[in-house]
Amino acid sequence: MIVFMTSQGSTRQPKYQRIADALRAAIQAGEYGPGDRLPGENDLMATYEVARMTARQALGVLQNEGLAEARKGAGVFVRAFTPLRRRGIQRLAREQWGSGRSVWSADSEDRELVVDQVDVREEEADGPVCAALGVPAGTQVWARSRRFVLDGKPVLFAVSYLPADIVGDSAITQADTGPGGTYARLAELGHAPVHFREEIRSRMPSAGEAERLALSLGTPVIQIVRTAFAEGGRAVEINEMTLDSASYVLEYDFDA
Amino acid sequence: MIVFMTSQGSTRQPKYQRIADALRAAIQAGEYGPGDRLPGENDLMATYEVARMTARQALGVLQNEGLAEARKGAGVFVRAFTPLRRRGIQRLAREQWGSGRSVWSADSEDRELVVDQVDVREEEADGPVCAALGVPAGTQVWARSRRFVLDGKPVLFAVSYLPADIVGDSAITQADTGPGGTYARLAELGHAPVHFREEIRSRMPSAGEAERLALSLGTPVIQIVRTAFAEGGRAVEINEMTLDSASYVLEYDFDA
Repeated sequence: MIVFMTSQGSTRQPKYQRIADALRAAIQAGEYGPGDRLPGENDLMATYEVARMTARQALGVLQNEGLAEARKGAGVFVRAFTPLRRRGIQRLAREQWGSGRSVWSADSEDRELVVDQVDVREEEADGPVCAALGVPAGTQVWARSRRFVLDGKPVLFAVSYLPADIVGDSAITQADTGPGGTYARLAELGHAPVHFREEIRSRMPSAGEAERLALSLGTPVIQIVRTAFAEGGRAVEINEMTLDSASYVLEYDFDA
Repeated sequence: MIVFMTSQGSTRQPKYQRIADALRAAIQAGEYGPGDRLPGENDLMATYEVARMTARQALGVLQNEGLAEARKGAGVFVRAFTPLRRRGIQRLAREQWGSGRSVWSADSEDRELVVDQVDVREEEADGPVCAALGVPAGTQVWARSRRFVLDGKPVLFAVSYLPADIVGDSAITQADTGPGGTYARLAELGHAPVHFREEIRSRMPSAGEAERLALSLGTPVIQIVRTAFAEGGRAVEINEMTLDSASYVLEYDFDA
């Protein structure tokens, strides 16, 4: 027993970690590419002479790191990470929405996009939304919820809040906001966004969020809270977005 | 038994989820503030008449969501989330490093900062770094590694890569790069950064990363890869940063 452990290197690191290290190195060296099936529990048991639980733990490590994902009954696969590149600044340029294109079309290019779970309603804003919009407690806002599904995979859901006194009679209160979307309508109402602030956080999802985004085990969400400011500094929209972190690279380009 | 389950609401949702929901609601309502101890396993067993494993699972849900963290032997506490606000664009403005201040000082303000695990060496760049710098395979680069510890908590580690043909004779090859840091030295060498691109991803940490950042269970890392471009578009630095997601809010401010 002592001879066996010595022959395997350090005795401090658990066996399942050493197996996970070997698999990770093989993935990083390209021996297993995106979408490839990794060796199964039986393969690992035979190759490393370990118990099933050890083999399972090793595969669990890679899933927790987001490098691999289990598919029911089929095994564990290298995650096919083909993220959307979200160019944070360019996509919100006035030339984009001002010319009638949607902000989202800058991200999704030629891929098939479905917007579902659309819900548009007037409501009393809660405390954090009022604080972010700089309006008194209890102010009426229009809340626009929706989910984006790209090539069959849910990648993001979002809720926008806009002050009812600004948008109450506009297409912003409809499911379809028209060409150029919310920002084009705000511009027509005399409240064109001239400045944006995006705040980015990351954390593990709740069970409900994981379900809504069909997240694999061990996948965090990225939260983006965007505030759109009109001339004079008034906040005209808060947009709280929750993103599948495995589906996105966020890019910000700017000058020194 | 049927009566008991009915009295508890939906029978579809597992009991530990319902307990987690109640605790989460109490945290969000402010009944438990940052740093407060949550009810322990024994408290939950008595209050909800459940087994220890169910109580433990309920607390595990909140830890996995990053809302709470276990401290050995002391219980489970609401996470004290006092993040650093990293203002992505302003902190890299030429006025910042051009006047001899460090980029980092824009984030850390009055808090105590220790930089440790400093390692500066010349090496042959690997494939991804060569691709990002736009140099041939095998090009020599200076690699600068370090970790930032703020108020005793490791919050970030980073490795910068700079082409050796540019920086070989400068203070960039020393542990202390001098006032204004790497970017001020690059400017003196005639390669001042004029444009930056930051790419942001999030994923769960490897065991080594979790240890290096002293991460609680269920805390993702944020990865930022920054490329600094000089006049003419040459990439003069790649900086691969790994951040404790619980310690950071990333902010980007920009015009429409």
